[in-house]
Amino acid sequence: MSVHKKKKKRGSINLPLGFSLAGIHCGIKRRKNDLGLIVCKDGAKALGFFTKNVNVSYSLQVSKKHINNNIKALIVNSGNANCFTQRSDYVKTLKICQSLAQTLKIKTENVLIASTGIIGKPLSFGRIKKGLPPLCQSLGQGYQEFAKSMLTTDTFPKMTSRQIKVGEEKFTITGFAKGAGMIQPGLATMLAFILTDASISRKVLYGLAREAVEKSFNSISVDGSMSTNDSVYFLASQKTHPIKQARALNSFKVALEEVCLELAKMIVKDGEGASKFITINVKGARSKEEAKRAFQAISSSVLLRAAMFGENPNWGRIVASLGQAGIKIREDKFTALFKNLKKKEVTISVNLGRGHYSWGGWCCDITPQYVRLNAGYS
Amino acid sequence: MSVHKKKKKRGSINLPLGFSLAGIHCGIKRRKNDLGLIVCKDGAKALGFFTKNVNVSYSLQVSKKHINNNIKALIVNSGNANCFTQRSDYVKTLKICQSLAQTLKIKTENVLIASTGIIGKPLSFGRIKKGLPPLCQSLGQGYQEFAKSMLTTDTFPKMTSRQIKVGEEKFTITGFAKGAGMIQPGLATMLAFILTDASISRKVLYGLAREAVEKSFNSISVDGSMSTNDSVYFLASQKTHPIKQARALNSFKVALEEVCLELAKMIVKDGEGASKFITINVKGARSKEEAKRAFQAISSSVLLRAAMFGENPNWGRIVASLGQAGIKIREDKFTALFKNLKKKEVTISVNLGRGHYSWGGWCCDITPQYVRLNAGYS
Repeated sequence: MSVHKKKKKRGSINLPLGFSLAGIHCGIKRRKNDLGLIVCKDGAKALGFFTKNVNVSYSLQVSKKHINNNIKALIVNSGNANCFTQRSDYVKTLKICQSLAQTLKIKTENVLIASTGIIGKPLSFGRIKKGLPPLCQSLGQGYQEFAKSMLTTDTFPKMTSRQIKVGEEKFTITGFAKGAGMIQPGLATMLAFILTDASISRKVLYGLAREAVEKSFNSISVDGSMSTNDSVYFLASQKTHPIKQARALNSFKVALEEVCLELAKMIVKDGEGASKFITINVKGARSKEEAKRAFQAISSSVLLRAAMFGENPNWGRIVASLGQAGIKIREDKFTALFKNLKKKEVTISVNLGRGHYSWGGWCCDITPQYVRLNAGYS
Repeated sequence: MSVHKKKKKRGSINLPLGFSLAGIHCGIKRRKNDLGLIVCKDGAKALGFFTKNVNVSYSLQVSKKHINNNIKALIVNSGNANCFTQRSDYVKTLKICQSLAQTLKIKTENVLIASTGIIGKPLSFGRIKKGLPPLCQSLGQGYQEFAKSMLTTDTFPKMTSRQIKVGEEKFTITGFAKGAGMIQPGLATMLAFILTDASISRKVLYGLAREAVEKSFNSISVDGSMSTNDSVYFLASQKTHPIKQARALNSFKVALEEVCLELAKMIVKDGEGASKFITINVKGARSKEEAKRAFQAISSSVLLRAAMFGENPNWGRIVASLGQAGIKIREDKFTALFKNLKKKEVTISVNLGRGHYSWGGWCCDITPQYVRLNAGYS
């Protein structure tokens, strides 16, 4: 029996069975798409991985309440984080879900909502409400408009897809993401929606999804800032034959990790003002936890990231950042190798010389353009 | 009885009794002064506050061993951190202290050593050794040369002085510092030497110095990076009448805090590429510890500091950074006020609305120039 796997090119993806997408401009942003919708009319098993920031958006608060329900719709807006304005905006957020539910003839509790954009500026709920009928009418007109609707300072839409066939068992996994700034392990101004038609229990999906998120979205850093809105959602429509074979389940796991990883890397490549994509491989740690901590310390060092912009193998800054994170290293055991320093994709291989555990992740350099972009963004 | 206090202008300071200073160029750097010396031939009670980074320089390791002794000399070099090269460099560092001790006819254990500059590049011990005779010969030729000898990317020497007279009791406190990059609460690429001729026990000095350091050097942030070399040294030559009156001791405490604070602020003002000096006042915290943590979270947010460069009151980034630090705030209780946003000295007043504790500190903005400077520094 053979395993077939297809990787589609960016911009050419398959939608899993049971999902229908839309994206429009409703007026939160000046011109570009700012309102997106995923509908799964027969319901989907859903999971959400959320930011560890303790100040979170009203959208996230509502979604956290609904996430254990049978999910039939997910609405997303960009241009406004719907965060830290007035407590009464929580109720307005719920009402948007209610209006959408009425339009789609479903229940409010079956709706998820996500927002991304500036914090502390009141969201124009009126514009979203007016946008709901045209949004629902444009359902099914293509995922491109949806992918665009969730962007902020991103320079390109981020999506990828895998189709798997193991004997009779066939399924699709498709993911969408947005990133750009405030990206830090622990999830940041980042939204990702992973859709699949696979028939998989919530429990099994949770195990696989948690590992995939850890290896991808939680292993990237753009600027060390953790946002109030970050969420990764998984929706499984259960439209294909149940996954029974261990081999099929394994293929699903691999494809899920690939989709998450590809989206995560796109987020780093599109990091605000970034000129280099940096892979950091840490080995020789005493534990997996220490290897992750070392990766996070190195990838969030502004000084090292500035050195990368200058194509300068300043490994002393790695030593300093590790020490700041409490990781003591020895001169005769530590090594740091820089590969392709002058190219767009740099690899830094660090051996802590303390043990046998390893971890890897991705970040980008910091550039004068990053500072200029964030000086003006409001 | 009146308290007389004189504040000298920058560049015009008094040296406390019992100290003699020197600074020369020995060849670690291309042109500028790179070797400095403080001699206190009758000995001084000494204290050291060191970086919390676990990877520290050989100089710091040696000084930590000697700090409890009667200190008669302190040698400092700039241009090289003397850190993370070869373990055998620890012995070479000790030998420099030994050579200096021989020249000055004191013991090796009475010598402190401090270094600042790039990490991981072998220090030319030979050049320092050759520099020792001319260094010792130029002792007493003025503190200006000493102040210059400890600089790296600093754009001006940092020193300040206070003279106190309470009745018969009279003493001087004089401090020197260097800063520029890698500045973060917890001490960073920062060296400071505070000299006084006051007769004060090590125990009393420790209590006062610890508080002064906490309010000054530990309340500033330039770039969130903690260096391998940071140290603040206090040397008390005991040359004046013992401090007996509570009032004199209080004047000493105030003057000590002022000297530390003035040096700390100079470090922030001279932060690499900085265009703005930012005072952050946090109030309404549940504890002093929480107030400090809030200050640290806000001052180390690259996004907020970029917004300050853009003169943009993006308080949403304060909300996000507080949440990242685990400090949950309420929309109806939290306030953030920006004052003089368009001027060189900005004040941000944050009320967490959680309790009655407060803390304040200083940082600078992040600019394209900071990135350029650190892209090239090696």
